[in-house]
Amino acid sequence: MSLMIVGSVAFDAIETPFGKTDKVVGGAATFAGLAASYLYDEVKLIGTVGGDFGKDNLNILTAKGIDIDGIEIVDDQKTFFWSGKYHVDMNSRDTLTTELNVLADFDPKIPSSYQDCEYLLLGNLMPQVQMAVLDRLETVPKLVVMDTMNYWMDVALEDLKTVLKRVDVLAINDGEARQLSGEYSMVKAAEKILQMGPSYLIIKKGEHGALLFGEGQIFSAPALPLADVFDPTGAGDSFAGGFIGYLAHVQSVNFHNMKNAIIYGSALASFCVEKFGTEKLQQLNKEEIAHRIEQFVALAKFEIK
Amino acid sequence: MSLMIVGSVAFDAIETPFGKTDKVVGGAATFAGLAASYLYDEVKLIGTVGGDFGKDNLNILTAKGIDIDGIEIVDDQKTFFWSGKYHVDMNSRDTLTTELNVLADFDPKIPSSYQDCEYLLLGNLMPQVQMAVLDRLETVPKLVVMDTMNYWMDVALEDLKTVLKRVDVLAINDGEARQLSGEYSMVKAAEKILQMGPSYLIIKKGEHGALLFGEGQIFSAPALPLADVFDPTGAGDSFAGGFIGYLAHVQSVNFHNMKNAIIYGSALASFCVEKFGTEKLQQLNKEEIAHRIEQFVALAKFEIK
Repeated sequence: MSLMIVGSVAFDAIETPFGKTDKVVGGAATFAGLAASYLYDEVKLIGTVGGDFGKDNLNILTAKGIDIDGIEIVDDQKTFFWSGKYHVDMNSRDTLTTELNVLADFDPKIPSSYQDCEYLLLGNLMPQVQMAVLDRLETVPKLVVMDTMNYWMDVALEDLKTVLKRVDVLAINDGEARQLSGEYSMVKAAEKILQMGPSYLIIKKGEHGALLFGEGQIFSAPALPLADVFDPTGAGDSFAGGFIGYLAHVQSVNFHNMKNAIIYGSALASFCVEKFGTEKLQQLNKEEIAHRIEQFVALAKFEIK
Repeated sequence: MSLMIVGSVAFDAIETPFGKTDKVVGGAATFAGLAASYLYDEVKLIGTVGGDFGKDNLNILTAKGIDIDGIEIVDDQKTFFWSGKYHVDMNSRDTLTTELNVLADFDPKIPSSYQDCEYLLLGNLMPQVQMAVLDRLETVPKLVVMDTMNYWMDVALEDLKTVLKRVDVLAINDGEARQLSGEYSMVKAAEKILQMGPSYLIIKKGEHGALLFGEGQIFSAPALPLADVFDPTGAGDSFAGGFIGYLAHVQSVNFHNMKNAIIYGSALASFCVEKFGTEKLQQLNKEEIAHRIEQFVALAKFEIK
């Protein structure tokens, strides 16, 4: 039994109103893997990096017990590189550079030791790559969670819709839900998207929390109001990693557990943004996480008799 | 003992993507009064209308047991008129017309029968008028809630800050909190605003719910996701009316009760937007409200062991 996470492993260079970084380790699989590693022991990554990535950087993952047998190292190529600059509101950003590099020809290979995968997170990647992973698994996982973004709706909508038919949970933001469904109201958007394949839809709203739709129910999760958000990069991936990591931990998929999973995902995302890149996610401990979960409970709790 | 609500009583003409209205009854005091009337019996309004307002329109208020002795009718003037057009996102709108009319010289008079006021809602109005009401009350109310808007921060900031020193709860939206505090983070904005006078700050975030700051705590309330929002006009006022109406009902002001008050306010606001103008708020019953409160409980509830 294991949790498999597919996604980019990258270098990011980030500028925010609070400062800027040189190339630091990033990527959807990195953030999601680190987040999940605090909740579940058997986390296995699928991805690819160039010869420039270096052992030290891979150690960031292995230090958390994450299996990197599925990360292909292509020595004569460079690692995927993204750089961006966040605006003062931290919700919008300009992409300065996107160098696909090794990701351009990424053909995911699944080690035989990964075939015990029960929980699968398809991190934000080209839909065809997400599909290839599904095709190459010998057993259909117990739960498939898919993250994606507006870019793929623009350039690969049909592929994306094909993958959607095979996933259980889709996690996107509110703008993406509107784009995918053509509906402004989240209720109507969810109705349409749940007819496209997934049984559950998560709407990520950043500082406004998240919504979960499924089983005819709706759950609204708060976001923890933070005094300082240093770097939002990877928050969505950390959310997804925490979400599926919690479900792998409890080994039971239903609306009740998914609500808790969203709170865990939100907690991991709230840590992620407190420092640049993966810095904070490298140094967490279980007590900090438990304390933050208590903050979420206090934040949302009310009792009407 | 009574709940006094000060604010505009108006005619609105509204256009949304779902349709448009001729002049319908609106105004902050109207929406807040109607909302509060479902939770508390002794609701008393302070406001002014012109000779054109008509008895039928006043009956909308009296039908709910609302005391209108404090609504001054100026026969030879016209009622405040606002018209606006909402964009497709329903969060932004263009004001087409603002005719202050009778509101231009509004000098609030407090009937002696209103001097038993324990709960006071200063609805969105010129800060000098809000101040006059506070000055003319013989006893300081148990709770003063103030609603305001960015317009008054632009044109009467010093007056607004003077009133703020005398209120217990300020209710504004996130953009207004940023403007008033000069801080982007809601946590930092709240810290600054709570130093300006109020003991509690409510941040209204529309479809994203509301935040309550005070007593060193934070509460995040969800908004009910709705399939259709027909007309957002008056939602903030209905929220404020439901909020203070609940507190007047339970006769106890603390963070715990304020959380519930925010849920009641959110529930009343969620009804308000389902029809044009005050239509829905005129025809509610207690069972519907109780059912909606249950929806809010289900929406926000999670249990982490």
